[in-house]
Amino acid sequence: MLAICLSKDHLTSKAIQENKAFSVNFPDRALAVKADYCGLKSGKEVDKSNIFNIFYGKEHQSPLIEECPLSASCKLTEVIQVAGDLLIIGEVVEAFSDEGYLNQGEPDVKKMDLLIFTMPDNKYWSLGDYIGQAFEIGKSMSSDEE
Amino acid sequence: MLAICLSKDHLTSKAIQENKAFSVNFPDRALAVKADYCGLKSGKEVDKSNIFNIFYGKEHQSPLIEECPLSASCKLTEVIQVAGDLLIIGEVVEAFSDEGYLNQGEPDVKKMDLLIFTMPDNKYWSLGDYIGQAFEIGKSMSSDEE
Repeated sequence: MLAICLSKDHLTSKAIQENKAFSVNFPDRALAVKADYCGLKSGKEVDKSNIFNIFYGKEHQSPLIEECPLSASCKLTEVIQVAGDLLIIGEVVEAFSDEGYLNQGEPDVKKMDLLIFTMPDNKYWSLGDYIGQAFEIGKSMSSDEE
Repeated sequence: MLAICLSKDHLTSKAIQENKAFSVNFPDRALAVKADYCGLKSGKEVDKSNIFNIFYGKEHQSPLIEECPLSASCKLTEVIQVAGDLLIIGEVVEAFSDEGYLNQGEPDVKKMDLLIFTMPDNKYWSLGDYIGQAFEIGKSMSSDEE
């Protein structure tokens, strides 16, 4: 499952509700300018369909972006209005990534070098240092140390 | 607004639904081991209430963690069952951070050095390099370059 939050008035929000499907494409550092351009311009003003190379999954519902290290094709399951925005929940039907971004068949987030977006400063960042293994590093702490 | 996803069976999920309130505390690198310990141990087994120094906001509903660079006190607005888990949506009533983590009154995510958690590899990371300003860097691309 995957949840995204979108403004009600975006063309994308309307298209998702009509098609009952959507894709989520995770851009990397090299795609930052193009991804930001897509955020700046509405599909109402410009045709953004030729900025990236697109392909389709088996559902053939929503276009996926070839250049993105990770893409997910989703089936819409629920739309919830949250404070004027829409929380769009979907089930991941298929996920796509090149072999080069995987580590023993699992996504390697460091190799993918995906953009991280923070608000309200509206900045793009990369993923930083590896800090530790979750559900492991806490074992060094015993109940006595609480 | 803020949404978190929790397992239905966690003690936390039950407490949030009873109290109609919850807090979200964002740990930094220095708190990684303690935060992970809290993820490893259930409140059913050990008392985790004395691991951190706690304080309360004006609602006095859910404890907040003093050591965390950023904490938010939330009022529960909606609980949605999503594939066996609960999507818990809340309204941020108050947010807390020390002056040292702010930049002209706004959260400075780089100063906060918060943990980033990835799945399914279950790893903790720091925030990396600044890549660019959102809603700005895309302006360098004209419609001709599409």
